[in-house]
Amino acid sequence: MNRHLLSINDLTRDDIESVLATAAKDFLEVSRRDIKKVPTLRGRTIIDLFYEKSTRTSTSFELAGKRLSADVINVKADSSAVGKGESLKDTVLTLGAYRPDIIVIRHPHVGAAAFVARYTDAHVINAGDGKGEHPTQCLLDIFSLQQEFGGLEGLKVAIVGDVLHSRVARSNITGFQKMGMKVTLVAPPPLLPRGVEALGAEVTHSLDALEGVDVVYLLRMQKERHEGASFMPSLREYISRYCVGLKHLGKGQKVLHPGPINRGVEIEAELADSQENLILQQVEAGLAVRMSILYRIIVDSAAAAEEAAGEEPLAPETKNIRAVG
Amino acid sequence: MNRHLLSINDLTRDDIESVLATAAKDFLEVSRRDIKKVPTLRGRTIIDLFYEKSTRTSTSFELAGKRLSADVINVKADSSAVGKGESLKDTVLTLGAYRPDIIVIRHPHVGAAAFVARYTDAHVINAGDGKGEHPTQCLLDIFSLQQEFGGLEGLKVAIVGDVLHSRVARSNITGFQKMGMKVTLVAPPPLLPRGVEALGAEVTHSLDALEGVDVVYLLRMQKERHEGASFMPSLREYISRYCVGLKHLGKGQKVLHPGPINRGVEIEAELADSQENLILQQVEAGLAVRMSILYRIIVDSAAAAEEAAGEEPLAPETKNIRAVG
Amino acid sequence: MNRHLLSINDLTRDDIESVLATAAKDFLEVSRRDIKKVPTLRGRTIIDLFYEKSTRTSTSFELAGKRLSADVINVKADSSAVGKGESLKDTVLTLGAYRPDIIVIRHPHVGAAAFVARYTDAHVINAGDGKGEHPTQCLLDIFSLQQEFGGLEGLKVAIVGDVLHSRVARSNITGFQKMGMKVTLVAPPPLLPRGVEALGAEVTHSLDALEGVDVVYLLRMQKERHEGASFMPSLREYISRYCVGLKHLGKGQKVLHPGPINRGVEIEAELADSQENLILQQVEAGLAVRMSILYRIIVDSAAAAEEAAGEEPLAPETKNIRAVG
Repeated sequence: MNRHLLSINDLTRDDIESVLATAAKDFLEVSRRDIKKVPTLRGRTIIDLFYEKSTRTSTSFELAGKRLSADVINVKADSSAVGKGESLKDTVLTLGAYRPDIIVIRHPHVGAAAFVARYTDAHVINAGDGKGEHPTQCLLDIFSLQQEFGGLEGLKVAIVGDVLHSRVARSNITGFQKMGMKVTLVAPPPLLPRGVEALGAEVTHSLDALEGVDVVYLLRMQKERHEGASFMPSLREYISRYCVGLKHLGKGQKVLHPGPINRGVEIEAELADSQENLILQQVEAGLAVRMSILYRIIVDSAAAAEEAAGEEPLAPETKNIRAVG
Repeated sequence: MNRHLLSINDLTRDDIESVLATAAKDFLEVSRRDIKKVPTLRGRTIIDLFYEKSTRTSTSFELAGKRLSADVINVKADSSAVGKGESLKDTVLTLGAYRPDIIVIRHPHVGAAAFVARYTDAHVINAGDGKGEHPTQCLLDIFSLQQEFGGLEGLKVAIVGDVLHSRVARSNITGFQKMGMKVTLVAPPPLLPRGVEALGAEVTHSLDALEGVDVVYLLRMQKERHEGASFMPSLREYISRYCVGLKHLGKGQKVLHPGPINRGVEIEAELADSQENLILQQVEAGLAVRMSILYRIIVDSAAAAEEAAGEEPLAPETKNIRAVG
Repeated sequence: MNRHLLSINDLTRDDIESVLATAAKDFLEVSRRDIKKVPTLRGRTIIDLFYEKSTRTSTSFELAGKRLSADVINVKADSSAVGKGESLKDTVLTLGAYRPDIIVIRHPHVGAAAFVARYTDAHVINAGDGKGEHPTQCLLDIFSLQQEFGGLEGLKVAIVGDVLHSRVARSNITGFQKMGMKVTLVAPPPLLPRGVEALGAEVTHSLDALEGVDVVYLLRMQKERHEGASFMPSLREYISRYCVGLKHLGKGQKVLHPGPINRGVEIEAELADSQENLILQQVEAGLAVRMSILYRIIVDSAAAAEEAAGEEPLAPETKNIRAVG
């Protein structure tokens, strides 16, 4: 891995395979044991800096850090000096002076994570920057598909819903194609960003496109980002045309969703409660994948530094086993 | 103990005696040492999921978990995806995918803890569900009385105040009687739930009933649950007739209160500051009792599982000593 | 050190030298290692009780505690029983029943920390009480100056800005003089407390006073404490006369600021981004100094108790090495 994880574009296909292999081999089973903890990052400091409310991503990163034995500091923007008007730059410089190993940042503005990375020596992980990117979500989605389907080459996926406001869509359109998957977007025109075709996905406006895909990836309708603007004739019309239920699915098709779900909006309750979705597998995958990212972002950089210094680095597998043991 | 602790009715008198004996023997002194920590639950994950503001109960559970060396994750509803409208069911399913060992839940709706227990493999502990129950408060109250009085058989207690809105009253009316105590309720009729007599307690409307009891259990006036409705002629009248002070107490009578107290409403300041109340003993007891509950809910279930699998379980005492050591 | 740290007046010059020597010798480098953790306070409990929003001070204390391996409990007033109207006294009595080793308190009222100290057996550290004091800030400022200048005897410092609302100014006027420094206050008359001259500092109203000082200490303009009152002709006028930039500085002069900064109000952005300020050194110093305070407040008291009991105490250095090892 690179020094930071800001965008899914920071990773080659090989990088992705490698990080997810570590997640599968070393970290997935940690959370299934009685003693859900390894000493890997003992004494390291991780700051989770969240400028947006979150349960799933923030608890996932918090638990990932704690199960690696790191010290985890949660900074929530709404109970912090941000209330005193401090700029993001000054907040990051200040936090950097504590010499954290990793800063995980969620922020409502596109580019916030890249901005943070310019002002700190810590490794920066983008946990969502506005409509920008959400690379760890993309990685956990790829991991979930690997666990379900094995190889991903040639797999067909339809991404359905509020593409316009979705950082998850932005990361996944790129990430899924990087893994050899074919991506189709399904959304009403007002919920598609202008020029989205440039990302290489096919674009359609009807759920008919679900026929023949292997995976249906539902996006959360981000009502909170619509800012009062009426983006559609009506939510009711959206639901009637795009809410996906069991009746839309063919044999063997699987449904993913990044959560939190809106039952009855983008996903029918019956589908949400069925075995046809992999939503909880995604959540579990997220923990293992984030443990792997936190671990690899530190050891890979250390190995690169050793190599630059002329020392022969240990094979990653050896370091891995030794550290996790 | 059973798999969950949702209601004081989940426990027999023997269960209660046993859990409290563990608290007294193994955990009370832990918090009195310099090194206030035992490795008992190292590597276990406890999620404290609080949908209502709380200091005392949430810090008590957090400290109990940390002094047992567990990883504790605090999820506060007001800084979480609940702000995005996620249902309790989906929140619990999501958190469950992290495979926590225990979920401690406080929620404004009656039955929330039982609801949570249906959707998770974790042990669920009810830390207060609306006007429903608050079983760990009941256990710490019983513990405090044991420490003060020794045996509880035949002890007389008056529960005074806002019974209507009190989950503490609901758990304690049952729990105290289970331990052989005689319970009298003292409250103005509008603050008594309809049909409360069915729980077996005597009901009166005057502080005259304090004469002859051993214990006066004051309830917090839950102004925040009265929802604007005028439940009484006036708060002033309530205070004049039901606010308890030293002048109401006879020799040897002790006063309990679950906190936080309203000085000058249900309890006079002078009584709150006197040695006649056991309020701080209750707080200290709460920590030891919750450590015991967190520990026993895991090991008792493990022992039951081993037994079901045909293995001879260790005597609880043996496990206990070994684990706490 | 004494049993509590409520005011910079609790410390003699020797105390200050000693605590800062421990910070320099034992704790500054801990945060510069890969493994940023020592077992010194393992099993100890620290409660950080914050009634005001804070990032820098609260994360600094949280990290200081965690890097000493203590269990740290954060209690934020806005998500606590304070919402139910509990008094500070009852909150402290309650938290005290958990037998914490240290309570760190920030509160909007002058004297709150001293008040807390009356109601608990824990060591109390004042992390800011209204316009009162902020002794740990003073100590970290002295530490930063020692690191930069070596000895402080005879050093000249100008404290510039909103002295009226500043607890930092109040602690630093006293603390800097205690270390042998000469202090000048620079502020418009409405931002100077009546009778401030009694503290021994010179008072002027113009930035001309910066000429010849070694250190310029800028105060944060506490807009949030002005409570709507117009304290000055206008903020614009304040900025034109008191906002400090590179153009005001002579050779070798250094600028400190307790943060968070208001760019363009009390400090020009160019100065905030230059090497002429020690702001980030202050932040880093804060962590080491707070680790030292947390450690020393416990061991010094223990040593005093042993001595009182007639035992020969270990030399502080010996204890220190042994404990930190």
